[in-house]
Amino acid sequence: MKVVLKIGGSILYKDNFDLNVKLIQAYIDTIQELLTKGHEVAVIVGGGKLARVFIQASEKLGQSKGYQDLMGIEASRMNAMLLIAGLKDKAFRLVPRSFDEVSYALSSGKVLVTGGLQPGQSTNAVAALIAEFFEADILINLSNVEKVYSQDPKIYPEAEAYDRITIKKLLEILQSNEEKPGKYDLFDRVGCEIIKRSRIKLTFTDGSKPKNIKKILNGENIGTIVE
Amino acid sequence: MKVVLKIGGSILYKDNFDLNVKLIQAYIDTIQELLTKGHEVAVIVGGGKLARVFIQASEKLGQSKGYQDLMGIEASRMNAMLLIAGLKDKAFRLVPRSFDEVSYALSSGKVLVTGGLQPGQSTNAVAALIAEFFEADILINLSNVEKVYSQDPKIYPEAEAYDRITIKKLLEILQSNEEKPGKYDLFDRVGCEIIKRSRIKLTFTDGSKPKNIKKILNGENIGTIVE
Amino acid sequence: MKVVLKIGGSILYKDNFDLNVKLIQAYIDTIQELLTKGHEVAVIVGGGKLARVFIQASEKLGQSKGYQDLMGIEASRMNAMLLIAGLKDKAFRLVPRSFDEVSYALSSGKVLVTGGLQPGQSTNAVAALIAEFFEADILINLSNVEKVYSQDPKIYPEAEAYDRITIKKLLEILQSNEEKPGKYDLFDRVGCEIIKRSRIKLTFTDGSKPKNIKKILNGENIGTIVE
Amino acid sequence: MKVVLKIGGSILYKDNFDLNVKLIQAYIDTIQELLTKGHEVAVIVGGGKLARVFIQASEKLGQSKGYQDLMGIEASRMNAMLLIAGLKDKAFRLVPRSFDEVSYALSSGKVLVTGGLQPGQSTNAVAALIAEFFEADILINLSNVEKVYSQDPKIYPEAEAYDRITIKKLLEILQSNEEKPGKYDLFDRVGCEIIKRSRIKLTFTDGSKPKNIKKILNGENIGTIVE
Amino acid sequence: MKVVLKIGGSILYKDNFDLNVKLIQAYIDTIQELLTKGHEVAVIVGGGKLARVFIQASEKLGQSKGYQDLMGIEASRMNAMLLIAGLKDKAFRLVPRSFDEVSYALSSGKVLVTGGLQPGQSTNAVAALIAEFFEADILINLSNVEKVYSQDPKIYPEAEAYDRITIKKLLEILQSNEEKPGKYDLFDRVGCEIIKRSRIKLTFTDGSKPKNIKKILNGENIGTIVE
Amino acid sequence: MKVVLKIGGSILYKDNFDLNVKLIQAYIDTIQELLTKGHEVAVIVGGGKLARVFIQASEKLGQSKGYQDLMGIEASRMNAMLLIAGLKDKAFRLVPRSFDEVSYALSSGKVLVTGGLQPGQSTNAVAALIAEFFEADILINLSNVEKVYSQDPKIYPEAEAYDRITIKKLLEILQSNEEKPGKYDLFDRVGCEIIKRSRIKLTFTDGSKPKNIKKILNGENIGTIVE
Repeated sequence: MKVVLKIGGSILYKDNFDLNVKLIQAYIDTIQELLTKGHEVAVIVGGGKLARVFIQASEKLGQSKGYQDLMGIEASRMNAMLLIAGLKDKAFRLVPRSFDEVSYALSSGKVLVTGGLQPGQSTNAVAALIAEFFEADILINLSNVEKVYSQDPKIYPEAEAYDRITIKKLLEILQSNEEKPGKYDLFDRVGCEIIKRSRIKLTFTDGSKPKNIKKILNGENIGTIVE
Repeated sequence: MKVVLKIGGSILYKDNFDLNVKLIQAYIDTIQELLTKGHEVAVIVGGGKLARVFIQASEKLGQSKGYQDLMGIEASRMNAMLLIAGLKDKAFRLVPRSFDEVSYALSSGKVLVTGGLQPGQSTNAVAALIAEFFEADILINLSNVEKVYSQDPKIYPEAEAYDRITIKKLLEILQSNEEKPGKYDLFDRVGCEIIKRSRIKLTFTDGSKPKNIKKILNGENIGTIVE
Repeated sequence: MKVVLKIGGSILYKDNFDLNVKLIQAYIDTIQELLTKGHEVAVIVGGGKLARVFIQASEKLGQSKGYQDLMGIEASRMNAMLLIAGLKDKAFRLVPRSFDEVSYALSSGKVLVTGGLQPGQSTNAVAALIAEFFEADILINLSNVEKVYSQDPKIYPEAEAYDRITIKKLLEILQSNEEKPGKYDLFDRVGCEIIKRSRIKLTFTDGSKPKNIKKILNGENIGTIVE
Repeated sequence: MKVVLKIGGSILYKDNFDLNVKLIQAYIDTIQELLTKGHEVAVIVGGGKLARVFIQASEKLGQSKGYQDLMGIEASRMNAMLLIAGLKDKAFRLVPRSFDEVSYALSSGKVLVTGGLQPGQSTNAVAALIAEFFEADILINLSNVEKVYSQDPKIYPEAEAYDRITIKKLLEILQSNEEKPGKYDLFDRVGCEIIKRSRIKLTFTDGSKPKNIKKILNGENIGTIVE
Repeated sequence: MKVVLKIGGSILYKDNFDLNVKLIQAYIDTIQELLTKGHEVAVIVGGGKLARVFIQASEKLGQSKGYQDLMGIEASRMNAMLLIAGLKDKAFRLVPRSFDEVSYALSSGKVLVTGGLQPGQSTNAVAALIAEFFEADILINLSNVEKVYSQDPKIYPEAEAYDRITIKKLLEILQSNEEKPGKYDLFDRVGCEIIKRSRIKLTFTDGSKPKNIKKILNGENIGTIVE
Repeated sequence: MKVVLKIGGSILYKDNFDLNVKLIQAYIDTIQELLTKGHEVAVIVGGGKLARVFIQASEKLGQSKGYQDLMGIEASRMNAMLLIAGLKDKAFRLVPRSFDEVSYALSSGKVLVTGGLQPGQSTNAVAALIAEFFEADILINLSNVEKVYSQDPKIYPEAEAYDRITIKKLLEILQSNEEKPGKYDLFDRVGCEIIKRSRIKLTFTDGSKPKNIKKILNGENIGTIVE
């Protein structure tokens, strides 16, 4: 199976800016296992706390939003590098810096591990793009969101959790939340539209448990399936 | 002034796939004039008919939407090349293939002429990104749409034309048209959000008259000003 | 066997600028078959009608012949992209933009699909260069020329068709035709000299029938063998 | 004058991983001033706390020292990016990723801002290399070390501070400290040897006061002059 | 004036493989002078003895002719590097490795110094290509051939020397010499055809006297003018 | 086993600047044999006489030491190219020009053959870096030094030869020789420190006998083992 994993940057950090090395190692082990079973894997990693620190600093320095995005992209690339080294010969040893380099990496037959690619585009959108380009069987979104809710459950305790949801419904939830204060950052709209146009199978699950990946590939419904 | 021009690909072609050489030459002359007056210029060119022919062919060949986007991007780059040569020593002689190369080109002090950059992103979004990155004073959108209408005027003759419009209103129009058949392809949503987050001054005008550019820079309101 | 295919750009287009999707698909299928049989394949694609349209436009814009060549090269690269996507994981996913990138692509073990490389050099010369560099067993030239004739058969009905011809004779034909009006564009001189210096086996055949490739590899003499 | 500034990464961070935005802004302002006065400037930035966090994490993940160096290099590049944006059109907008790209950047006539370049080499060595290549008049080393001491003054309060020192003496201090616990990380040996072989004028000063740069260029002896 | 200089590799070497440092310095001084007078300059350097040594070795190692060309190209790039360093800030600091990089270099406004670019193409052809692309006013060919002769004067003492010659005549001489043993290596055919198609002004002169360049630019006829 | 070979440039040349084609061929054959036995191989080649000729010339031209290093690096790359061609499909077909490109090459699964990478760093240091990055089982240093001696044996006939030596001792020998006239150029200090920090197994042996490589891999102690 062709599997694309989107690992949210936020879960890679503990409080105090320390990296969650144990979790990163667990991801590396899980990916190694997937390879052993014959799956092909591509991984997109988010920027997390590192991105926020640099975006904030560059905002204070009066830099443009586009440049702030670039800082966030570099942060996500640094996070991606932590996975690459652990995968050793199994990974393409460089984090691509453009879509052309994504193509190079995919041509190598190795695991592609990447961060963001371009200002104005979240790592969720990149994950959807690569899933589309790679013709992936499934895109698994691993973050601190274990399921898709109708609203941000931290703010609205009455929010409904979904086991299954249509992509159209997901877009509606994203849109209705855009107008509310307190960003509910599930997935981004561009990503959704790519999911929709290419009918990519997308599943959300709790990223603190990398073993969920194997369960999902075995057909268990942990989290939310978008269809 | 720092001026970013988005030239719609469709206006570069005549019927029968011939390129509208006269119009291209008029754009080259206008840009040369802007430079003489001390303006700094960056140009983003769309894919137009060439993009459509290759996207269609690649769709028939069963290629992914992401790959179809790549074909459209290459088409826009070919269109961009026609302008580069005409600008001679004034232009950066290569069409950037990544955002890193956009940065190289901007560092050269020459006119940057580019097409699309990445799948999942229209040339309108690229224009907004570059306007943001370049910290442009104005982004002028030149296409076969001489003004922003409340609806597609070809379908709805009662559509209202705007001289001025807020970016919020523009986003609403885009969104309400998304759900209707018969795409009204004014500008794309990602582009709008970049315009919004960085408060870029955006003006729509009739692209068949390159002289409009000078009039707009002189403060005339031809077309629609987004504010 | 190491097989290099030169596919003339002109056969990829139908009248009215439409791409001949069926023929492109037939090429993709044939190449897939060759791979299944254990052959290694590299493909060079010409610029065809797309090249001519852009070369003409850039000539009218007063651009140098060198720049016109660049436009033709980009056109050939777009044509090459149509084949790449169809070959999926079997192809190197990028069209090389320099000889260094050709080397990268050849190092990947995938099918290299490329267009032109540099001004002043036809895609025929590129095909010969790559056949030489790849140490190919055979270079098959697929175009609208089903056989080598002593003269352009469209102008001189009495022209003689050859089943076999020496490279020296081929060079003579090219040369004697250079001085005549009505270009008889069989192969280019630089290409011939590379064929000659490295004794590459070259066969001309009718490009509208991709199945000819398999016949030629099976030893049938369809078209003209240069020796 | 051709001025190369080496800004130690450690001074860019406050406790708690926050970036010292004020100091970064002060550096940007100082560099702008130098440019106004006609100086040519190149800047090398160290990795600081960010480097340490990622090096530690990658060590725990069992990665090679070489890969740990790569992580530190990326960290220094992120730090460098904060300066680039602030310098706007005055800076080469990309952080070079190889010595070839350093050459590109130097050819642009803009301020080169870079971090580390290659495993096995500190940013001090890179600063010396670029000072040599750029044929700089002076290399100013800005760090939390306001002067060169005979020993680490934090450990040995009796350590002697130097106003002037020979490069030979500096090498001796470095060497004698290598064998002691508690790294006294003044400058690295490779860097020193480049300073020596090309007789580059090197000055150490307190990096928390960017105004020191102007004083040093005016001939004041703040810190330690290596000769 | 836009001046392209083709410096034959052979004149850069003395017997015993020593480089002719004095002559190289004289070229650097001459180019500096041209710049001072406001000329724009691009330089193409041949491979000379270094190329021959490596081509021979690679031939003995059974390598393809294409690879032998690559070795020759690298040799010419090393020769080019000797000029670049001497020109310091006036030169683009890298030797381009592809035509795209030639475009980068030309966009920098610095002196482009390059060697060969691609197998199957001599540095003479590259010089013609760059003269065409750069829209040069004159291409000066500096080699151990002080004038164009009807035949190789070393073999045929009765050979006629020309002050002026048409490009058509030059092509005839090249062609008639191709068939004779003892290569008379004046200029290559591809180069000539580019000269012809773009009507580039080409002058041959004795490369051991760099001062000839200034005389030629002043209108003196030293050597042979091709028209 | 993962084997890194450092081939000293000096042994590749005979007197009179001729390349030692026989020895190069013997290296190619040996590497092919290692691959057949399942070893993974990376090769770093020094600059040898070619480097010296160009370094000397560029010194006479008044170029910086850093630029002289660049010339030496290009020389080592040319030497590396001679091995690449001989290894054909087994080798990555390009000589990497940066550490990023080393990563690309290592991702290809082919034999990496490289020369130097950056000024201020010898090819010995590069070999140590790549051995570290590649996580090599052994680094074999092949040069005209068949064993490590306590002093340069050409000058001090009483010098002691070692069969085994600690890395600490090796560093001491290097250091004590640095201060003596008549450079004893065994290995460089940066390389040693990488060997030390990553505990790479390093063996010195007589490079004129490529068969030594196989003997060493079989456990014979020819030369000096550093531990």
